[in-house]
Amino acid sequence: MNTFLRCLIALVLMLAMMLNTTPVHAEDGYDLWLRYRLLAPEQAGLYRGHLSQLVAGSGTPTQAVTRGELQRGLAGLLGHEMPLSDTVTRDGAIIVGTPKSSALIEHLSLNTQDLGNEGYLIRNVVVNGHTATVIAGREDIGAMYGAFHFLRLLQTGQPLDHLDLRESPHVKLRLLNHWDYLNGQVERGYAGTSIWDWWKLPDWRAPRYTDYARANASIGINGTVLNNVNAGATILTPEYLQKVAALADVFRPYGIRVYLSIRFSAPVEIGGLKTADLLDPQVQAWWRAKADEIYKRIPDFGGFLVKANSEGQPGPEDYHRTHAEGANMLADALAPHGGVVMWRAFVYSQANPDDRAKQAYTEFKPLDGRFRANVLVQVKNGPVDFQPREPFHPLFGAMPKTPLMMEFEITKEYLGFATHLVYLGPLYEEVLSADTMAHGKGSTVAKVIDGSLDDHTLTGMAGVANIGTDRNWCGSDFNQANWYVFGRLAWNPSLSSRAIAEEWVRMTFTNNEAFVKPVVDMMMGSREAAVDYMTPLGLLHLMGPGHHYGPAPWDASESRADWRPVYYHRADHQGIGFDRSRAGSDAVDQYAPLLAVQFNDVKQTPEQFLLYFHHVPWDYRMRSGNTLWYELVAHYTRGADDVKRMLETWRHLDGYIDKERYNQVATFLAIQEKEAQWWRDACIAYFQSISGLPLPPGYVPPQHSLQYYQSLSFPYVPGFSSW
Amino acid sequence: MNTFLRCLIALVLMLAMMLNTTPVHAEDGYDLWLRYRLLAPEQAGLYRGHLSQLVAGSGTPTQAVTRGELQRGLAGLLGHEMPLSDTVTRDGAIIVGTPKSSALIEHLSLNTQDLGNEGYLIRNVVVNGHTATVIAGREDIGAMYGAFHFLRLLQTGQPLDHLDLRESPHVKLRLLNHWDYLNGQVERGYAGTSIWDWWKLPDWRAPRYTDYARANASIGINGTVLNNVNAGATILTPEYLQKVAALADVFRPYGIRVYLSIRFSAPVEIGGLKTADLLDPQVQAWWRAKADEIYKRIPDFGGFLVKANSEGQPGPEDYHRTHAEGANMLADALAPHGGVVMWRAFVYSQANPDDRAKQAYTEFKPLDGRFRANVLVQVKNGPVDFQPREPFHPLFGAMPKTPLMMEFEITKEYLGFATHLVYLGPLYEEVLSADTMAHGKGSTVAKVIDGSLDDHTLTGMAGVANIGTDRNWCGSDFNQANWYVFGRLAWNPSLSSRAIAEEWVRMTFTNNEAFVKPVVDMMMGSREAAVDYMTPLGLLHLMGPGHHYGPAPWDASESRADWRPVYYHRADHQGIGFDRSRAGSDAVDQYAPLLAVQFNDVKQTPEQFLLYFHHVPWDYRMRSGNTLWYELVAHYTRGADDVKRMLETWRHLDGYIDKERYNQVATFLAIQEKEAQWWRDACIAYFQSISGLPLPPGYVPPQHSLQYYQSLSFPYVPGFSSW
Repeated sequence: MNTFLRCLIALVLMLAMMLNTTPVHAEDGYDLWLRYRLLAPEQAGLYRGHLSQLVAGSGTPTQAVTRGELQRGLAGLLGHEMPLSDTVTRDGAIIVGTPKSSALIEHLSLNTQDLGNEGYLIRNVVVNGHTATVIAGREDIGAMYGAFHFLRLLQTGQPLDHLDLRESPHVKLRLLNHWDYLNGQVERGYAGTSIWDWWKLPDWRAPRYTDYARANASIGINGTVLNNVNAGATILTPEYLQKVAALADVFRPYGIRVYLSIRFSAPVEIGGLKTADLLDPQVQAWWRAKADEIYKRIPDFGGFLVKANSEGQPGPEDYHRTHAEGANMLADALAPHGGVVMWRAFVYSQANPDDRAKQAYTEFKPLDGRFRANVLVQVKNGPVDFQPREPFHPLFGAMPKTPLMMEFEITKEYLGFATHLVYLGPLYEEVLSADTMAHGKGSTVAKVIDGSLDDHTLTGMAGVANIGTDRNWCGSDFNQANWYVFGRLAWNPSLSSRAIAEEWVRMTFTNNEAFVKPVVDMMMGSREAAVDYMTPLGLLHLMGPGHHYGPAPWDASESRADWRPVYYHRADHQGIGFDRSRAGSDAVDQYAPLLAVQFNDVKQTPEQFLLYFHHVPWDYRMRSGNTLWYELVAHYTRGADDVKRMLETWRHLDGYIDKERYNQVATFLAIQEKEAQWWRDACIAYFQSISGLPLPPGYVPPQHSLQYYQSLSFPYVPGFSSW
Repeated sequence: MNTFLRCLIALVLMLAMMLNTTPVHAEDGYDLWLRYRLLAPEQAGLYRGHLSQLVAGSGTPTQAVTRGELQRGLAGLLGHEMPLSDTVTRDGAIIVGTPKSSALIEHLSLNTQDLGNEGYLIRNVVVNGHTATVIAGREDIGAMYGAFHFLRLLQTGQPLDHLDLRESPHVKLRLLNHWDYLNGQVERGYAGTSIWDWWKLPDWRAPRYTDYARANASIGINGTVLNNVNAGATILTPEYLQKVAALADVFRPYGIRVYLSIRFSAPVEIGGLKTADLLDPQVQAWWRAKADEIYKRIPDFGGFLVKANSEGQPGPEDYHRTHAEGANMLADALAPHGGVVMWRAFVYSQANPDDRAKQAYTEFKPLDGRFRANVLVQVKNGPVDFQPREPFHPLFGAMPKTPLMMEFEITKEYLGFATHLVYLGPLYEEVLSADTMAHGKGSTVAKVIDGSLDDHTLTGMAGVANIGTDRNWCGSDFNQANWYVFGRLAWNPSLSSRAIAEEWVRMTFTNNEAFVKPVVDMMMGSREAAVDYMTPLGLLHLMGPGHHYGPAPWDASESRADWRPVYYHRADHQGIGFDRSRAGSDAVDQYAPLLAVQFNDVKQTPEQFLLYFHHVPWDYRMRSGNTLWYELVAHYTRGADDVKRMLETWRHLDGYIDKERYNQVATFLAIQEKEAQWWRDACIAYFQSISGLPLPPGYVPPQHSLQYYQSLSFPYVPGFSSW
């Protein structure tokens, strides 16, 4: 007995030593919000009675990945494998499935019919006299989404008793748009190169593809456009479709469909035809045959995304046809297979002397009602181009007969690339909650997007992905939050961006309240900080030419007037801003009448959009009582100061999380601090050279001369297609 | 007591369950050969008496990383932390340091003087009456190399008693050459993009840089050229030198110096001068000032690598100066700081009608003796360009007054990119052991390189890196072996490539003999298989144009004759091969007289070089008694069959290692099998169209027509600078 005891002690010590070994893999962000690290003992204790066995089938690929994710997640969170069982044999079972796949669930007679294809419910039930939690969908995919929701409850420390959740997505197509070229470059990508290793596909299906699908499925994303909207024709060749099909195979169990950006002139480039004119029967036949070929390989192929007659891309207007005619021709080819066309409204022309911000509306509004039922028009959130702040796009609410799809940018092209900490939740929320007044008060953009305003069932939201080969996927840990919040808002555009930020922080870092609260606060303020140090008060498009890095409000090097900062800010000795009132470009009248009146009046225009709608004298009195010039300097300064405070906040949080991620965030915040100061100083130096006004008292002058800022140049800026 | 026992049992069970948890991180190759996984119990048992405590200082950065690596390695291998101690207090201590850093070691009165700056000894000793193992260098770096050697002993299952090892490197400069562009592209890179994140440097020093340094230090690599030999001038701007300095700071503790490829015309491009002529005093002054600037930031900067007047790069010949004059001008700028110039001999000109293989010798041989003492001439292993097989470069042995540096290619530009399993050890060994006969028999290339043949102390070996952002660094697990064997041979060019392969397999995968033996055999045969399915019997340069992917012996699309396969194989109705005999280009006379006679005689020429030196009739009788045509088909077929067997071998090894790496290797071998067949079939189809001969009996005809193979085209081939 004594020997046995000594033996046991030795064993315990040995095991303890093994556990004590330095982990081989440092935290590197790869796991995203699906970290599944051991819960704190007090929290694990809370769950003990609820997590005794897993009753889940694996009869279909989706069931298998659902069960696998629960096993993986629970093992990680609880520190031990969850026993599988065919039926409920004790209290605390977790039952997962659909009435079709599980007799147990069928017997529970839950109302799964109303959940739709993707919805789920999570509820505490009693089975065979034992307490259990049921995660049920009408379809496998719904149960999978429920499983991820259930894991999220654990990851965020939610109680598991009295569960009675019902969720269905509010938007049908929840898509990532990858601006990835086939050579591996990612346009406006700041996280390495494309995660699609086209060269080794279809043979090599990298494990990362599966992790990509897991991450997307966990937040409800159900589609992905694999290639850049500036598309070549090669993606439609048989060789590449084989590669696309391999990816589709990986994604399918996770409910994710693949879509492709197509080049309108592909029938000429790879089809051997002399024209791509949609009225040519050979062209129509080519697209039908191509669609047939695609669906033969990929039966659940999603459809086409099209950038046509925009920034040099070919399109129907090359043949004097309308965007609607172009979209419809493709829609007809896809319709027999259930595919959709997502036609981008991002069009403007240098040849058109009208305000660039007005051109999409001018071109698309008259086409309302002219699109096939399987066409969505994809509209960027604002009328210019993903700026730190823009008013919502006037097309929202203005095309009631057409499903309008939201296009957000997740990658931070205009918001500091990889290194600035800018949480985009508040930007998305601001746009979605904006009231178009299209059918009177309460006609929010969210209701346009989710189809409820004009009774559309075909609805969608797209986010331009910030994903690349960087180990942490997104170039920084905090950029992962932007992928996360996009997915969550695409599922339900009415969610609060703060609540989502909190979820994300808990899942990604820790449930420690002393960490969660300040970090969520920092995230929530970060976008306003960026607006302030880059483009406050309705300014926009002040960044460096082409590469979009850093401040260059003076720049006139771009070939097109409407790509130059001076086109947008129009600063002169009198004042600053773009007059879009009725006295100016009259962009205000693209909004609903009540809004148009408001935006037309400099006094009624929200100050955050002031210089977007009006050219305003430097000495204009703001609501604060200060002059515009004073407020401009104050905003720029506040933005830079906010970043200093963010860095301070972070430095106080050393020790709450792993050293690796703590250090990278700290380093990046220091870069952001430096660059925010640079933005503030360069913009103030430039605008002061035009206003001729002294700095308001108490404000520190720019560190360097305007000439210094103008002299800076940046070779090899990432994300810019100059390879 | 009973309660205590129950308690203990519960604890054991809990701990066992925790250990049983699925590991969060799958094996992904990131750890390279420094995996440090738990040793098998029987092996760990062997070491128990030898590994009780670690006596190692951390007073300098190199000491700190040495101690850290031992702690990390021992903890991983043994499963528990190794206690640190200031002195030896029990049997089995490990003592690490130098006589300067450790009084303990000083007292041992070991002969460390003869070890040089980088050498070390490892020996069992008795200290304070306790057995111990001492790892000592004359300098910190030597002790660090010794520590890695000691860990390798454990990793490969060597006994730790009766240790009496002394090692010093045989070659002074052991360098990687990165063909990385500042935009992230890697020329001839098949493992993602550049690991240098220039954009975020100098602020963000990615942890990967440290792991890169650890891996290199573990195999003795002591320098790295960060940028492509096709260099721009930007790397020499103050902004980029700041970034270079940050990397140098990371590498310094590991004994690794940074070097840069420079552009000869930089004084014009970033210096504002009108000329880059080396005779211009302003140009000389510019380079001196630039060198001073570099050394101010990086006191141990290594020097410059120069590709001049080669494939379009600028150089001294633009001003009618010689390569020696060009090299010397740069050498004079670096000499005050102890830097070197590595001047590449890879020159050939389209304007020169002479055999391309002869041109480097013709140009450089007359310059022997004209270079400054701090110049090395860097020569590729063969006279053409890193082909699967070439004879050694005739410059080796031909420039006795000049230190010749070897340039090997580690990246598999001509050997199947990422996916073919081709272990390059035998290629390197074949070249190093080749006898130049320069001073009679035994004048091997290795002796030229290590300086022993002509008494040079400045010696060097460079390998064109196969490293990129891919998680596994090298694009495949087996490509890691090529990085490894390069480093080990640079340390000692006389090592056996088989012994190195075995070391690597044990460290990278497992010590299980049932795995080690077949895998080492497979590796050792893999290069000959590639020669056979690509370019047997002295053929070379038959690959696709520009991108170098796949077979294209017919190709004539390249702009330069000496870039076209037909220039090299010269197949016609009579026969095949490049006549380099005295009746032909007389390249044979660039070799030492005895070799020249041998290579000049078709009968004496080794058959593996037959078609390199001779144009031979199709019906020529080979030593086997078969015709050349028969042997050619037989070699191609054998190569393809060998790959089938490699895949078979691998499939029998399922279960010996982790699923992740097993699967990737299996997938890549299947790709290689397909591509080896393609090479075999396309080459046979083409050569048959020229020879007009029937296939020998029993040989399967190509799967497709020659026209089919000729019709294939490949967009977006990796590693090719077409971004």
